[in-house]
Amino acid sequence: MTFVAPDYGKAFGLLRDAAGQKDGGLWDAYTRHPFVEGLRDGSLPQASYLHYLAQDYLFLVHFSRAWALAVVKSETRDEMKHASATVNALVNFETQHHVEVCAAHGIDEATLFNAEERPENMAYTRYVLDAGLSGDLADLMVSLVSCVLGYGEIGMRLAQETVADNPYAEWIETYAGDEFQDVCKTAGSMLDQALTRRIGADYAASPRWQRLSDRFIATTRLEKGFWDMGLQP
Amino acid sequence: MTFVAPDYGKAFGLLRDAAGQKDGGLWDAYTRHPFVEGLRDGSLPQASYLHYLAQDYLFLVHFSRAWALAVVKSETRDEMKHASATVNALVNFETQHHVEVCAAHGIDEATLFNAEERPENMAYTRYVLDAGLSGDLADLMVSLVSCVLGYGEIGMRLAQETVADNPYAEWIETYAGDEFQDVCKTAGSMLDQALTRRIGADYAASPRWQRLSDRFIATTRLEKGFWDMGLQP
Amino acid sequence: MTFVAPDYGKAFGLLRDAAGQKDGGLWDAYTRHPFVEGLRDGSLPQASYLHYLAQDYLFLVHFSRAWALAVVKSETRDEMKHASATVNALVNFETQHHVEVCAAHGIDEATLFNAEERPENMAYTRYVLDAGLSGDLADLMVSLVSCVLGYGEIGMRLAQETVADNPYAEWIETYAGDEFQDVCKTAGSMLDQALTRRIGADYAASPRWQRLSDRFIATTRLEKGFWDMGLQP
Amino acid sequence: MTFVAPDYGKAFGLLRDAAGQKDGGLWDAYTRHPFVEGLRDGSLPQASYLHYLAQDYLFLVHFSRAWALAVVKSETRDEMKHASATVNALVNFETQHHVEVCAAHGIDEATLFNAEERPENMAYTRYVLDAGLSGDLADLMVSLVSCVLGYGEIGMRLAQETVADNPYAEWIETYAGDEFQDVCKTAGSMLDQALTRRIGADYAASPRWQRLSDRFIATTRLEKGFWDMGLQP
Repeated sequence: MTFVAPDYGKAFGLLRDAAGQKDGGLWDAYTRHPFVEGLRDGSLPQASYLHYLAQDYLFLVHFSRAWALAVVKSETRDEMKHASATVNALVNFETQHHVEVCAAHGIDEATLFNAEERPENMAYTRYVLDAGLSGDLADLMVSLVSCVLGYGEIGMRLAQETVADNPYAEWIETYAGDEFQDVCKTAGSMLDQALTRRIGADYAASPRWQRLSDRFIATTRLEKGFWDMGLQP
Repeated sequence: MTFVAPDYGKAFGLLRDAAGQKDGGLWDAYTRHPFVEGLRDGSLPQASYLHYLAQDYLFLVHFSRAWALAVVKSETRDEMKHASATVNALVNFETQHHVEVCAAHGIDEATLFNAEERPENMAYTRYVLDAGLSGDLADLMVSLVSCVLGYGEIGMRLAQETVADNPYAEWIETYAGDEFQDVCKTAGSMLDQALTRRIGADYAASPRWQRLSDRFIATTRLEKGFWDMGLQP
Repeated sequence: MTFVAPDYGKAFGLLRDAAGQKDGGLWDAYTRHPFVEGLRDGSLPQASYLHYLAQDYLFLVHFSRAWALAVVKSETRDEMKHASATVNALVNFETQHHVEVCAAHGIDEATLFNAEERPENMAYTRYVLDAGLSGDLADLMVSLVSCVLGYGEIGMRLAQETVADNPYAEWIETYAGDEFQDVCKTAGSMLDQALTRRIGADYAASPRWQRLSDRFIATTRLEKGFWDMGLQP
Repeated sequence: MTFVAPDYGKAFGLLRDAAGQKDGGLWDAYTRHPFVEGLRDGSLPQASYLHYLAQDYLFLVHFSRAWALAVVKSETRDEMKHASATVNALVNFETQHHVEVCAAHGIDEATLFNAEERPENMAYTRYVLDAGLSGDLADLMVSLVSCVLGYGEIGMRLAQETVADNPYAEWIETYAGDEFQDVCKTAGSMLDQALTRRIGADYAASPRWQRLSDRFIATTRLEKGFWDMGLQP
């Protein structure tokens, strides 16, 4: 059975295609990275996984701040509602999940919070925050969705292609599960609406589109770099 | 029975005293404003109340954005958790309450959202947002609490001093209720912790204290100006 | 000789027309305000002028910060060059001029800096700063130009229509002079370019135009409110 | 003759010592990096130099934006004057110098502006911008000075220790020259004043000092990473 990528809306489809044509297939370099394949078939060394989780905890701290900036930059009640619900989910639920998984492996939260942030990690979240500081909600949204929607797609594919007795089954279920998939659909729809409101229905024909697309490509490269880092504890 | 103001922590107590000594009693000029007394004894004209509610809806939109900026400026998990829970409460619950009360009086949400924002309203929320942009979380928190903790104190006093068959009973119960009082206690405690973390336990002796206190006084003046505006529909 | 308004570019022309059709002639309510006419014929009481200058000093402090935010939000070298030259001119020259005029009337700079900022003043500059925080450079630029280009137009008209021995001749010359008029032409051109880059050459047909126009109208109202305040020392 | 590091003020001295004790001598790892020694004795390959210059052009674009954020976050006229003069110098003079040197090597400005920004570069400038967004001027200033004052110190040492006929003589003279050294002295003094104003004269004993010191260490690591990148074109 061939995997069919989930539909997260029109803008994401266009951006995903743009990243697919970059760097000899950048979208696959991210979503089919050796780290991801190691999660899929269970071959990823546990040390790599824990190293990744610890950096991902710090990533979530700053990524949550970037979603909070999306609330600051919202212009409609719908934008505010979706962005603030996402912040709350990230801070009070998803990050909590990382804390619990790490605790089960003997790493307490103070250790996580005070770990040294790797430059690859810093580059990513601070670039996204700066997209929000320098631009408007459209600039910020295209920079936020590589992570959210990429993980949604990875989760769906791995749920279909995984193996029995996979030690990473819980990770896969988290991102393939209905709760996270709903977050993805909402984020994809919010992206479409933010672009339409600020640029018009034909946003992909606007002079901004290339630059917005470049932001998506930049964050997709940073995602790939994050997996690279995960393999080098 | 004399009213005893609720205890929302050490820093708020000091700031409240500072505002009490300003402008011949600024704290009372805010919390015992004729508008507030009209809510207490039910004599406030309904037109003033609806005018206030409509402007307060716009206030909440931008005040929620300011709390979201507190998430962006958080340095600890506790700060992030409290601030993001507050944003979610403001956006997805408290603002919703205004929408429903206004709907019951025949004012729909699109009308609220597109109402012309009065300069007194604009001055207040944009000053708070700029406190966050120009300073750190301590600057932002002292600017956020005049509203939150002042309303908590007003709610508690009015619950004690109100009259029978008051048309504004629901307003009073909202701010005197356990849910809002818990928000107040958390905000007061978050303020104490933010100041201690950034300045030290003896924060009131630091060179910043006068300027932080000036911010609290500025927002208390803006609260008083908001009630003045409420009486002039 | 009829006054012909100077040409500061296409976008400003459209925004000026929009404000002209609002509130029964908002653009004239700002640029031909009784305060302005008092400067023109010299009848403005000196107390009003000094009150205005003191508040305008505080205005310039925060308006300079808003132009600095335009540097933070620039996407091209040209945008950065123009915005940073403007910040430098405002901070190191124009504000200095206010300091000197006030000093000549016995008001020292510490008094100016520590004066109580009026809510009308606060509303204006913080609204502009928030336009930058919440939106992109286009949102910020349309909010900055009511002041800059309105003063340019007022300066040109007053230079043509003023009377002999006007005590406010220096004020008029400052804003009618080549140096300030060059700032106006550059700002108008920067506005056109920022809109074209972000929205396209046909920006006035975009879905954003109404909201950008609303920002210009909001700041024009705040300008009118600033003159009102000037007359009430 | 032994090199004696220039005196750029008290706070910088303390921060430099803190970085000196980190990572087995982090300050030297930055200021005596092989890339720097290659500039000193002229052995640096020209390809590395041009690669560095091109990335440094992009660095200056975003570093100038961070200094502009320092204007936005200033609380005194002195802070505003120094920060805005620095922005103007960076945007309208120092960046221009890079443009001219690159042009002399056949690289035009459009090529520079559109070059792909390396993650090491992105991590650095966006971290500094975020220090300003999340904290106050003290957080931003400690993050800005590793670069400015480190280059000042490198320039002074290389001027003393360089060799005859060094192809990088102009680079060395730029940073050892009076103009840049004045920028360093002003920045060092502005740092001392910003800390004293916000924390008190005994700022190094405050609970914030460790975190401010951590920011300086983080940016010093990013400087070292920038030289590493320079050697890998």
